Amino acid sequence: MLRPKPITPDEVKRHNLARVLRHLHEDGELSRSDLVVLTGLNRSTIGALVSDLAESGLVEEVPGMGGSRGRPSLVVRSKSESVFVLAFDLRVDRIVAAAIGLGGEVLAHIQRPRSNGPYPVEKAIATILDETNELFEALPTGALWAGVGIAVPGVVETELGFVRKAPNLGWIDLPFGELIHGAIKEHFGVCPRVVLGNDANLGAIAEYVRGGATAASSVVYLSCDVGVGGGVVLGGQVLAGGSGYAGELGHLVVNPHGQPCACGSKGCWETEVGRDAILGAAGFNLGQDSFPELLDAAKSDPEGMAAKLTEVGEWVGVGLVNLMNSIDPNYIVLGGHLAEIYPYINEVVERRISQSRPNIKTRANISLPSLPLDSPLVGAAEMAFGPLLLDPLQHVEQIYSLV
Amino acid sequence: MLRPKPITPDEVKRHNLARVLRHLHEDGELSRSDLVVLTGLNRSTIGALVSDLAESGLVEEVPGMGGSRGRPSLVVRSKSESVFVLAFDLRVDRIVAAAIGLGGEVLAHIQRPRSNGPYPVEKAIATILDETNELFEALPTGALWAGVGIAVPGVVETELGFVRKAPNLGWIDLPFGELIHGAIKEHFGVCPRVVLGNDANLGAIAEYVRGGATAASSVVYLSCDVGVGGGVVLGGQVLAGGSGYAGELGHLVVNPHGQPCACGSKGCWETEVGRDAILGAAGFNLGQDSFPELLDAAKSDPEGMAAKLTEVGEWVGVGLVNLMNSIDPNYIVLGGHLAEIYPYINEVVERRISQSRPNIKTRANISLPSLPLDSPLVGAAEMAFGPLLLDPLQHVEQIYSLV
Repeated sequence: MLRPKPITPDEVKRHNLARVLRHLHEDGELSRSDLVVLTGLNRSTIGALVSDLAESGLVEEVPGMGGSRGRPSLVVRSKSESVFVLAFDLRVDRIVAAAIGLGGEVLAHIQRPRSNGPYPVEKAIATILDETNELFEALPTGALWAGVGIAVPGVVETELGFVRKAPNLGWIDLPFGELIHGAIKEHFGVCPRVVLGNDANLGAIAEYVRGGATAASSVVYLSCDVGVGGGVVLGGQVLAGGSGYAGELGHLVVNPHGQPCACGSKGCWETEVGRDAILGAAGFNLGQDSFPELLDAAKSDPEGMAAKLTEVGEWVGVGLVNLMNSIDPNYIVLGGHLAEIYPYINEVVERRISQSRPNIKTRANISLPSLPLDSPLVGAAEMAFGPLLLDPLQHVEQIYSLV
Repeated sequence: MLRPKPITPDEVKRHNLARVLRHLHEDGELSRSDLVVLTGLNRSTIGALVSDLAESGLVEEVPGMGGSRGRPSLVVRSKSESVFVLAFDLRVDRIVAAAIGLGGEVLAHIQRPRSNGPYPVEKAIATILDETNELFEALPTGALWAGVGIAVPGVVETELGFVRKAPNLGWIDLPFGELIHGAIKEHFGVCPRVVLGNDANLGAIAEYVRGGATAASSVVYLSCDVGVGGGVVLGGQVLAGGSGYAGELGHLVVNPHGQPCACGSKGCWETEVGRDAILGAAGFNLGQDSFPELLDAAKSDPEGMAAKLTEVGEWVGVGLVNLMNSIDPNYIVLGGHLAEIYPYINEVVERRISQSRPNIKTRANISLPSLPLDSPLVGAAEMAFGPLLLDPLQHVEQIYSLV
C-alpha cells in the first residue's frame, strides 16, 4: 500500500489555475469578482492566477459590457482566436474537421467526402493531413496549437490512442493516434498530443458541456451513421464499464426474433433501426446514397413515411424504454439518421415509452442534437483541450505556435 | 452562487475519524501501523483518533495475533458485540431480521413467515416490533443501538424513508420509515434513525462491501422474489438515475411479443423470467407454495428441468446481454429464484451471452449471492450504519444503550 503524498503549494496552484481556466472555457467571459464567487478563492489569489494565465497567452482582460458608472469593468476571457485545437470526426461518408478555439469558438470548419465502406488507413491519414493544411490557412499567425482530437465510430482506447475495432472503417487493432501523430510531425515539423475517442461518447460530452444537456446528471447520446453507437455520461464522466464496453447500445437486443447482426447476435437495436433497416422499411435501395432520397420522399409525403416507419418507431421506443429502465438518463440525444427521421416516428416512439413509463416525470427528455456543429466533433475538441485544462502552465510549454 | 466555506480543523478531524472507523468496519482488525498506511495520516494523529473512538465505545485495542518477539502487538477492532444495528428484509413469504454489529458480525438472525400477497401495513409494523423484541433478547445489556435499516422490494425515497410503490406488498406512497420510527419509539421508548432502501440496491451494496464483488468497479444485483428487481452500484455508489428509477431491470423489454406486464408494457424481463413464468414453463401451479416443489423436481431430474427451462434461460440471457451492452458491469449477481434455478439454465444463458460477446474478457462475471445472510439484509445493515460511519462522534450521542 502506498501512502498518499502531502499536497504541495505548487499542486494547489496548479489545481486553482485549472479551475479558473475551465470556468473561462466553459462559461465564457467572467469578471474577477465572478471568479472569486465561482471558486471560493480570495480576490488577490484570483488576481495572481489570472496574471499567470494571461502571461502564458491563454487569457486576456478586456473591457466588459457591464459597469454603469465611469470606465467599464474588465472581464477575463479565454483567447479563443489564438489558442486552438484541431478536431476530426470520421463519418461514413465524410471526414469533418474543425479548428476550435479555447472557449469553444469555431475558428474554421471543413469537410471532405469519402467513399462508403472500409477506409484505407493511408487515405484517412492523407485526408487528415490535407484538412489540417487547409485549417491552418484559416488561422492567424502565432496561434497556439494545443492538441488534436479525433472522433472514431468504434471501440477506442482513449489513453493509448488505439482503435480496437471500427467496423464502418474496417479497422481492427490499429494504433491510429500514433500514426496520425507521426504523419503530422513529419509533414508539419511538430505535433501536439493526439487523442482518440468513441464518437458517441464524445457526442454525449459535447451535449453535456456545451449543448442542451448542461443541467442533466446523466446523458445518453446515440450516434447513428450506419449502425447505432451509444455514449453514456454520468455526472460529467463517460461510463466506461467494467470491460470498456459500456454504451454498446447498438447491440441491445430489442427484437429477439429479428435480423441477424454482424456481432453474432440477432435483433440488435442497430439491425432494427440502423440506416439499412430504415431504407428497407421505406422501400428504398440500401446504401448511403439512398438516404437523402428517403428524406426527400418523407418531406413530400410525411404521413406516408410515418406509416412506413411505424415498426422502426416501435423498435426505437423499445430501446429507449430499456435505457430508461436500466440507466434512467435524464437526457437522451438521438443523433445522425435517427435525428433525421424522428419527425416521422416521434408519435410511435412517445406512445411506446408511455406504455412503460406512464408517469411523465420518470421519462428521459428525448432530444435532437443541439449544437451548430456535429456533437462528436465538438466533443473531440473538448477532449483535445483536456490536458491544457488540467494543467495549463505545464501544458502551455508543450504547445506549438503557428508561424 | 454560494461561496464554498473554508474547511475547519473540526471538519478535518470528523473526516479522519470517519475514515478510520470505516476501515475498521469494512476491513476488520487493523494495527495502528496499518491505519497509518491506509490513511496517510501520521502515527500521533492515528493514536488520537483511535483514543477518541475507543472513548466513545466504538472500538477497542486488543492483543493481536502478530508480534513475533515478546509481548503481542495491539490491534484496533470495532466493538461488534456492543454496537449494532437492526436490519429487516421484507420478502414475499417472510420478514427476515438481524442484529448486525459494527464490523459486520451477525449477532442474531430470525425470520417470521407471512402470507403471500398484499401485506397490511399494521401487520408489517407488528411483525417488525415483534422481531425487534426477540432480537433485543439475544443482545447483551449495554449494547449501543446505532440504527435501523429496512430493505423494501420497490421504489423507495431513501432519504425520506418513503415507499413510492412496492407492488408485492401492495403499498403506494407510504411513509413507512416514519411509521416504524413512531411504533418503535412508542413501544421501546427510543428509536434511532430508520432508513429504507430498495432491496436490489442494498443487495448490490452488500456484495460490493462484504461479498464477492469487492474488487468490482460496477455491480448489478438482481433481487428475484416474485418479479425481478435490479440494483446498480458504480464505483461504490448506487446508480439512482435521472428520475430515481435506474435499475428497474424487471421492466427491460426482452421479448416484445411476450406476456403483458402489470407495468403496462409487455414482454418485460419479469414477465418472462419471474417466478410464475418459471413455474408455468415447468408445468407447476403458480404461486409461492409451488416453488419448493419445482426445486425438488429439479433435483430428482436435473436434465428434465433444464429442458423445460430452456426458453427461460434464453430470456435470462437476453436481459444479461442488454445489461452488458449498456452498463457493462463487471459483476452481476443473480439473487432469489434465479439463483435457485441457475444450475438448470446456466448452459443456455452462457450460450446466449457468447453469441453477443464472443470475447470472454468483455463479459461480466455472472455470480450467485456470496454472503451467508441474504444480501439485501446485509445491505440494509450497511445503510443503517451509514450515519455513524459518516460522523462517528456526533452520531454516537444519538444512539441508545439497551438496558
